[in-house]
Amino acid sequence: MGSLTKAAEEGASAAVDWSDEAVIYVNGVRRVLPDGLAHLTLLQYLRDIGLRGTKLGCGEGGCGACTVMVSCYDQTTKKSQHYAINACLAPLYSLEGMHIITVEGIGDRQRGLHPVQERLAEAHGSQCGFCTPGFVMSMYALLRSSKHPPTEEQIEDSLAGNLCRCTGYRPIIDAFRVFAKTDDSLYTASPLENANGQAICPSTGKPCSCRNETDVNANESSTLSSVKVYLPCSYNEIDGNSYSEKELIFPPELQLRKFMPLKLNGFNGIRWYRPLKLEQLLYLRSCYPDAKLIIGNSEVGVETKFKNAQYKVMISVTHVPELHTLKVEEHGLHIGSAVRLAQLQKFLKNVIAERGSHETSSCYAILRQLKWFAGTQIRNVASVGGNICTASPISDLNPLWMATGANFQIIDVNNNVRTTAAKDFFLGYRKVDLKADEILLSVILPWTRPYEYVKEFKQAHRREDDIALVNAGMRMHITEAEGNWIVSDVSIVYGGVAAVPLTAAKTEKFLVGKKLDDGLLDETFNLLKEDIPLAENAPGGMVEFRSSLTLSFFFKFFLYVTHEMNNKGLWKVGLDAANMSAIQSYTRPVSIGTQGYESVGQGTAVGQPMVHMSAILQVTGEAEYVDDTPTPPNILHAALVLSKKAHARILSIDDSVAKCSPGFAGLFLSKDVPGSNHIGPIIHDEEVFASDVVTCVGQIIGIVVADTHDNAKAAANKVNIEYSELPAILSISEAVKAGSFHPNTTRCLSNGDVEQCFASNTCDKIIEGEIRVGGQEHFYMEPQCTFVWPVDSGNEIHMISSTQAPQKHQKYVANALGLPLSKVVCKTKRIGGGFGGKETRSAIFAAAASVASYCLRRPVKIVLDRDVDMITTGQRHSFLGKYKSWSVLFSIRKMCTLYQISESVGKYALQISQAILLLEVLVVHKAC
Amino acid sequence: MGSLTKAAEEGASAAVDWSDEAVIYVNGVRRVLPDGLAHLTLLQYLRDIGLRGTKLGCGEGGCGACTVMVSCYDQTTKKSQHYAINACLAPLYSLEGMHIITVEGIGDRQRGLHPVQERLAEAHGSQCGFCTPGFVMSMYALLRSSKHPPTEEQIEDSLAGNLCRCTGYRPIIDAFRVFAKTDDSLYTASPLENANGQAICPSTGKPCSCRNETDVNANESSTLSSVKVYLPCSYNEIDGNSYSEKELIFPPELQLRKFMPLKLNGFNGIRWYRPLKLEQLLYLRSCYPDAKLIIGNSEVGVETKFKNAQYKVMISVTHVPELHTLKVEEHGLHIGSAVRLAQLQKFLKNVIAERGSHETSSCYAILRQLKWFAGTQIRNVASVGGNICTASPISDLNPLWMATGANFQIIDVNNNVRTTAAKDFFLGYRKVDLKADEILLSVILPWTRPYEYVKEFKQAHRREDDIALVNAGMRMHITEAEGNWIVSDVSIVYGGVAAVPLTAAKTEKFLVGKKLDDGLLDETFNLLKEDIPLAENAPGGMVEFRSSLTLSFFFKFFLYVTHEMNNKGLWKVGLDAANMSAIQSYTRPVSIGTQGYESVGQGTAVGQPMVHMSAILQVTGEAEYVDDTPTPPNILHAALVLSKKAHARILSIDDSVAKCSPGFAGLFLSKDVPGSNHIGPIIHDEEVFASDVVTCVGQIIGIVVADTHDNAKAAANKVNIEYSELPAILSISEAVKAGSFHPNTTRCLSNGDVEQCFASNTCDKIIEGEIRVGGQEHFYMEPQCTFVWPVDSGNEIHMISSTQAPQKHQKYVANALGLPLSKVVCKTKRIGGGFGGKETRSAIFAAAASVASYCLRRPVKIVLDRDVDMITTGQRHSFLGKYKSWSVLFSIRKMCTLYQISESVGKYALQISQAILLLEVLVVHKAC
Repeated sequence: MGSLTKAAEEGASAAVDWSDEAVIYVNGVRRVLPDGLAHLTLLQYLRDIGLRGTKLGCGEGGCGACTVMVSCYDQTTKKSQHYAINACLAPLYSLEGMHIITVEGIGDRQRGLHPVQERLAEAHGSQCGFCTPGFVMSMYALLRSSKHPPTEEQIEDSLAGNLCRCTGYRPIIDAFRVFAKTDDSLYTASPLENANGQAICPSTGKPCSCRNETDVNANESSTLSSVKVYLPCSYNEIDGNSYSEKELIFPPELQLRKFMPLKLNGFNGIRWYRPLKLEQLLYLRSCYPDAKLIIGNSEVGVETKFKNAQYKVMISVTHVPELHTLKVEEHGLHIGSAVRLAQLQKFLKNVIAERGSHETSSCYAILRQLKWFAGTQIRNVASVGGNICTASPISDLNPLWMATGANFQIIDVNNNVRTTAAKDFFLGYRKVDLKADEILLSVILPWTRPYEYVKEFKQAHRREDDIALVNAGMRMHITEAEGNWIVSDVSIVYGGVAAVPLTAAKTEKFLVGKKLDDGLLDETFNLLKEDIPLAENAPGGMVEFRSSLTLSFFFKFFLYVTHEMNNKGLWKVGLDAANMSAIQSYTRPVSIGTQGYESVGQGTAVGQPMVHMSAILQVTGEAEYVDDTPTPPNILHAALVLSKKAHARILSIDDSVAKCSPGFAGLFLSKDVPGSNHIGPIIHDEEVFASDVVTCVGQIIGIVVADTHDNAKAAANKVNIEYSELPAILSISEAVKAGSFHPNTTRCLSNGDVEQCFASNTCDKIIEGEIRVGGQEHFYMEPQCTFVWPVDSGNEIHMISSTQAPQKHQKYVANALGLPLSKVVCKTKRIGGGFGGKETRSAIFAAAASVASYCLRRPVKIVLDRDVDMITTGQRHSFLGKYKSWSVLFSIRKMCTLYQISESVGKYALQISQAILLLEVLVVHKAC
Repeated sequence: MGSLTKAAEEGASAAVDWSDEAVIYVNGVRRVLPDGLAHLTLLQYLRDIGLRGTKLGCGEGGCGACTVMVSCYDQTTKKSQHYAINACLAPLYSLEGMHIITVEGIGDRQRGLHPVQERLAEAHGSQCGFCTPGFVMSMYALLRSSKHPPTEEQIEDSLAGNLCRCTGYRPIIDAFRVFAKTDDSLYTASPLENANGQAICPSTGKPCSCRNETDVNANESSTLSSVKVYLPCSYNEIDGNSYSEKELIFPPELQLRKFMPLKLNGFNGIRWYRPLKLEQLLYLRSCYPDAKLIIGNSEVGVETKFKNAQYKVMISVTHVPELHTLKVEEHGLHIGSAVRLAQLQKFLKNVIAERGSHETSSCYAILRQLKWFAGTQIRNVASVGGNICTASPISDLNPLWMATGANFQIIDVNNNVRTTAAKDFFLGYRKVDLKADEILLSVILPWTRPYEYVKEFKQAHRREDDIALVNAGMRMHITEAEGNWIVSDVSIVYGGVAAVPLTAAKTEKFLVGKKLDDGLLDETFNLLKEDIPLAENAPGGMVEFRSSLTLSFFFKFFLYVTHEMNNKGLWKVGLDAANMSAIQSYTRPVSIGTQGYESVGQGTAVGQPMVHMSAILQVTGEAEYVDDTPTPPNILHAALVLSKKAHARILSIDDSVAKCSPGFAGLFLSKDVPGSNHIGPIIHDEEVFASDVVTCVGQIIGIVVADTHDNAKAAANKVNIEYSELPAILSISEAVKAGSFHPNTTRCLSNGDVEQCFASNTCDKIIEGEIRVGGQEHFYMEPQCTFVWPVDSGNEIHMISSTQAPQKHQKYVANALGLPLSKVVCKTKRIGGGFGGKETRSAIFAAAASVASYCLRRPVKIVLDRDVDMITTGQRHSFLGKYKSWSVLFSIRKMCTLYQISESVGKYALQISQAILLLEVLVVHKAC
């Protein structure tokens, strides 16, 4: 904490007429925010006030389950703006003066469903339903922010920040397709009717009974039929500026009131300032050099949540006009540091459309890179300057700012402005050329010159919403000299390969002045290897692959430049059509899916595309998951104390600091387990809490309970454990080498007299080999969650768990507490996905929480943060399969199909296909 | 509100060094009470902080379910005192500086049971268990306040304020008998073992398996066996002044700290003052003439709770020493007005023991009357002055103060003391000779003279813990004149016959100067009839009976006086032994009960006196009833809007005032019922909410929900209903006369060819007649209670109900909400008694609450106050039975037995026996 002196304080107060009245609207209802809530995210607040349709999926803006729509009023344009954001990252106070619309705000069973909700339900677009409200709100925000029906591509783009684990996305995209601008011909024959006027299921393309009031399922149908039949949305109705019965308008109060600088003292907790002028911001900067400047909180929020970062003063710079400049100037673009990425996208599009293409090669590269920069919700809040200043080594944009020759304007608290080149700005890991009394004002992006080419590169596990493995920005300026095309200027910058974006300096130096020629490539590649050295143990792994990417990016860049020159007739050869993909930015076609199934005929539900029982509850956010269950006020929240060692003996556990942590109510270890600490599905070979030796990172050693989840986590972090490390085996190959096998894990499947077959002559086609599958995260959308409470003061223990196996929860908990099964009750209403990860794995958390609940005679809730969930659940095991077969039964076609699905939907399907593949492989004749 | 001027305020503050630090200990844990809680009772507070073993039964100190033990330190005697009180009446702040021990504080399954708890469980002393914690605490308080083992009589006396509806009391008294002082011989052969050393069940007297560790019920037995085997209590261990592992000591802080006058401002709510000096009290009196003086709150608490009385300032006078005088003076006793009745009892006992009996005839009468004055818990807190000043027309003591010639000393705020005779003090209904600036200081009770006799009378429905139908105090002084015994002075005062205690003035005048003679009686009776006229419609009813009581009391008094004279050889005849009961105060012998059942033999649970599954949970207060279930913070509490007319058309319902009541969240009427308003067990002939016509007082017209139960009740009281009255039939005889019959309510049971039998000669013994049974309250100890909540935003409705018929709750609620049965869940863990009153009757409250919960999508709890419960449940119907029989099958013996039970246990058994009798009567040959 910096110089938080009283004088500075009073200065800050005296200089400006600060307001401490924080008002937001939620679903049309005015809410005054009290002071002291700067630590809260919008999501926590919404769920605290009972709006639990908005879900916590990942907590880092990665899954979109928490998507809500924010409306704010632009005093300059006099228009309200609507956009989707991740509520899990948005600091509550950052919404001051705005209107938040959640899934509950757009429709429900009582008032009638919104068309977006209705479509998703009817088109079978929800399965577990946990991601569903997020999809609804992304689509809703797109519609409200569009003046005209969006294109199919826009719809898919708007959903890039939303993950679904069940549906494979097809029915979701099908559901929303009807909102898209399509050919008029398609409108003529409504997508909801076939030529005979029969209702058609837009999901299946087959006659549909969902909308038929004489449905066999009278009960569900009556619920549906009470909802107005869907008609394509009128965009006049939902433009947000005029009132309609359907849509919540922007609150006139927020439109009319004077917008004030905001100051919330936070009762010795986190202070929150929102200056409205640059001078106010600079003044605050001078008072609080350690204060964190906040715009979208997409980085700071993650730091706070997952890296235990704590900031005492936060300054929201979202409303400082000087930081919002977006200007076309003579020598290039002037981009304010607080400009949001989505604004930048829109601005660049306009610039590219208006200016000559030779000037906008940099703009185009940045625009294309932004398409793969996180998801819509993040781009709607994350800022240009925020991304620059947090200086992530894997930032998608920073290599481009450097390569394009952008300059950064920096202002200090005395109003002095200096300019520095982007390439000189990044000094070390998350360290930039910015003093404590300086802030980044703007980015100056120069126009490109004729024959100057800029290109962006990014390779990630999947295309959308993922962090790059390696990215890059490259620029090359070619000038003609004596009939030759000479490289007059070049910039090659890689991200993801070092602590800072790395300039390939030797390569650049080598290339400058060289004649553009294929012959340059070999030497360039050699130099690149020197410029971009990746040690074998470089953070991020996959060193070989990433190294090759650095070269292939340049190769593609070279092809791109020469192809562009060829287009202008200035180069000898262009790329042929077959190789064009090497230089074209990847453009995914609009998704099309089909579903084939057997129609059993009329008069029976079997084979009919029935809307499932919970669909309407899920699209309206009314479906209650475990974490949505109302709990009594004396509930305690749990956090796990996890092993940080792969294999070690626990020497001591020191809770002296943890015990003094705010809200701490108890720490429970193996010695506190009232029943048996040994649990497991068949043989009890696991422990509720590691008693002596830990055998993996993330193993549960203890559980802390406290009054809030945040306090529990903070206390758990303060439990100090001393280990004595033991030798660790970290891979299957190491285990095989060491002869370290689990019982029952080496399995051999065979069919027929295998030995004889292989020995005989008939066995002429032997296929033999190995297949390895890495450990897989199950990736249920809803994290592990159990709410457990004692009945009759612990005579019985009841719980509501997110599990696929309530009986295992009952068994594990009874065992851990030493209670008969008849005294333990586990209920599961619904789960937000399990995929096998909520059978035995979930039961361990229930057992751990039940120990705390039972010993303290108080209700306890445990909800795992996504990072804890991933580290402690153990995931699906990695496999090594060896096969030897006379013939392989699985078809190559099937394998391809699976891979194709995973490609088309991006994201996680690849891992599923691998798993299925493995099963297929195991069903061959001979394995060992 | 009086002159609550600022000046007065400051004056009050300036005059005294008021403290606002209110501290209590609960079960050894220090708790600082915040300001603003003067409206709370101790019970509400205890339950709010999670100690829900203490139950709300009646809310007026009548049932003892809320009994806790209070310990306070007497600065004068330097000893801690322990006594049982009703937590439901005790204002929270009145416990300032005291230690409260609840059932949770003396033992539980984790720490081990207290012998009192263990005994009650093992002797089968709990059935529904709702009254159980109260019995435990009454017994515990008796033990802690006794220096020596109590007598059996003392034990039974200490339980007089505890009602049990299930057990018939026998097993409870059996359980506690082992704590009594008995013959040494009984101790030699431990009551827990027979001659062969076999464990004996103290309840049944038979070999007992409860304590046998090889019990067939291994599970329950293991719970029991973990508890130390009972040994008779050592009274050294539990004297409260020395520390033992078993008992909570009196907190040293409370013993050592300086006791301060207390002032809690109440944030514009109720103010609370506790002066420590008379001058402080008088000053407060001058500032707040409308302030209510509080000691035990046994009257004010009832007024506040059931009669909507509201007081803005309360002055606790419990610690003003001048009001606590208890002195023997030359001419009689000086009794401070704040002396608690239990203290008075003890004091009078000592006085009687020390003084000549001719001086203490008044003392003796008062002492005997106090035995029947409410229960122990009430006498432990209620004060002499409180009883006088609230001036109940049915006060048991006021007629005695008047008859004994007591004088009241009254002090005004200027310190002037005046004396007034008790007989002149009562001016009208609850109106006394006390100005706004005066308080009652003390009572001066004169000694009786030789040949002066005083006697108390009381007749109630039952002897213990009941309000009198008629009571009286009578005094007669006889002097010898010329060889004759002349009535020189007489005083005859009746209570319960008018708005004030009534002096039989003409009778007194007639008697004075008369020669004592049997011949006086006739004239006296005639005059008494004139003196004590009871109009036919006098409040309280039973006019004929009560009239005859006034005469028989005097007759008994005459017999008493003459018998006393005869004892001294001064009167011609005494009463013979057969008639002695006419003059003896009733002394109930110690209860003895036996239970006969068939012993089936060893090796099987059948026929064994097994401790039931919940016994241990019940005696420790760990058993959760519906109102103990933890609820979410957004819960709403319900209060019913009830008909005040027997038969009327509802003209209008005005909720305009109710809607503005604090905390109001909704009013729901017949028009708001989402499904059908028509409900009922077979034919739907009832309404959830009366829609048009009400057919009884107490019929439900609507339900109000609010943030607290108190706020809901206040709002419900503000719903204004206009009626147009319709003709009402109010009794069976009126109904028969009017030919108004319900379908299926006239039943005729016959056996054999009845007509032929009656016509034949063999039918010589015909018994014919009628029997009437009035409507009966079911009197379950736990009031009607349902906690209902929506799941998936009302897609389902779940509830936990105190009911004998969960399926009916499910059906009624589903019907009222228009939901399928599959969407409605009702659970009942246990109930605190039902007795038929929690079948269809309880379902109506569940339906009413579910309407509010469903419409508001919020959890709702409805717990009926006892008065509402009694008025609205409809009770068991009244019956008219006509019989004509050749022979009556029920045995007279059985009838007598039943009556005997009801006599021996007092209380409610009489009504049960009547009901059983009726059933027996109906099973005769012919009825119509």
